[in-house]
Amino acid sequence: MIRIEEDILGKNNRLAAANRALFSGKGLFVLNLVSSPGSGKTSILERTLTDMAGRHSFAVLEGDQQTANDADRIAATGVPVRQINTGAGCHLDAHMVGHGVEHFDLAAADLLMIENVGNLVCPASFDLGEDHKVAVLSVTEGEDKPVKYPNMFHAADVMLINKIDLLPYLRFDMEKCKDFARRVNPDIRIFELSCHSGEGMQQWYEWLTEGVKAKRRDKLLSRRHRDTEKTF
Amino acid sequence: MIRIEEDILGKNNRLAAANRALFSGKGLFVLNLVSSPGSGKTSILERTLTDMAGRHSFAVLEGDQQTANDADRIAATGVPVRQINTGAGCHLDAHMVGHGVEHFDLAAADLLMIENVGNLVCPASFDLGEDHKVAVLSVTEGEDKPVKYPNMFHAADVMLINKIDLLPYLRFDMEKCKDFARRVNPDIRIFELSCHSGEGMQQWYEWLTEGVKAKRRDKLLSRRHRDTEKTF
Repeated sequence: MIRIEEDILGKNNRLAAANRALFSGKGLFVLNLVSSPGSGKTSILERTLTDMAGRHSFAVLEGDQQTANDADRIAATGVPVRQINTGAGCHLDAHMVGHGVEHFDLAAADLLMIENVGNLVCPASFDLGEDHKVAVLSVTEGEDKPVKYPNMFHAADVMLINKIDLLPYLRFDMEKCKDFARRVNPDIRIFELSCHSGEGMQQWYEWLTEGVKAKRRDKLLSRRHRDTEKTF
Repeated sequence: MIRIEEDILGKNNRLAAANRALFSGKGLFVLNLVSSPGSGKTSILERTLTDMAGRHSFAVLEGDQQTANDADRIAATGVPVRQINTGAGCHLDAHMVGHGVEHFDLAAADLLMIENVGNLVCPASFDLGEDHKVAVLSVTEGEDKPVKYPNMFHAADVMLINKIDLLPYLRFDMEKCKDFARRVNPDIRIFELSCHSGEGMQQWYEWLTEGVKAKRRDKLLSRRHRDTEKTF
């Protein structure tokens, strides 16, 4: 069985590398949003797309076992979106994403947001070609999730702690949660926010904008580098 | 790949049948608790074990990728418990459960509670030999989860809608949620409760007691049947 798993992951990694090369050539900043079901990934996306409309051009891939509910919610913001239904599958893979983006004009986009199937386990193992995995944890889920699902919080570069508007009604120890996350991933970047009240969203938007700018610089530098190579 | 999946599930089903025969011989009522991470499975168990202490004898298997946090919480109630860590694995299987229960005196127990890894996808496909899968959905996760993760709510006989004490602070449509669940599973039994406030727990306890009594009757009948066969 171990060999089979390696084959699947090996094939996925090759396709993810191809996705990454494609995205990088377009100067696209790509995030893979992962979390438990119901942590608020789609709601964070809805608010982000609405609040940042005009500042950046987005495209969104929505992964779910069934329904096009999430894609419908995103489409209502006016952003190009594709729904991928995985059926019995528990995660998106690089092959699905490679085909999913065929429907977008990637040259016209700054940011590709991929919302994975709600699952804190399996999507951790599957590279989609993204720049960063962004793990969303809502405060209603309890502060211990980073140590109980360490693969995911280790694989993610960013953690969004969502639904902080509900903190007054919960027993949730914020410092403990952040400490648990840093135990499995000392470098994880953490944002506390509520896409319902809007609190903390600004810092997240600034981080997104930094990422988009860095991608543009990289693309420009690599183009100059190519031009220089041609000259000599 | 399809053949491999069938082999894994086929092997699991054979081991699950062996577990079921063992449990049935002991007259044990066995539940497999499944949900997203953080829906409150462990908290429901803690309260149930405490409130029903003296009425039934429990044993608990705890499934998590990492940590023995949940087993420690259950052990504090005085109930026999074993932690199974699945590592990279995203669900319990019948083999793990078969070995897990070796550590219990099953003849002394009425009820075996198996808390699965927090995951609304993969545990749906794996029979552990339980009488019922019990899907826990917390109201903070949103009412659409039964249609977005239909395999799980189809596989479950019971749905516990948890954290109803938080309803005043959320936009959650209870009737819509129940309607969604019945769309994928018309016969699903639904309990609305809060293990925090205690509201609605009584109906859940009554259902548990009914299950235990039915199992005792079955065991008695099959023993009489065996004795009758011996007589003739």
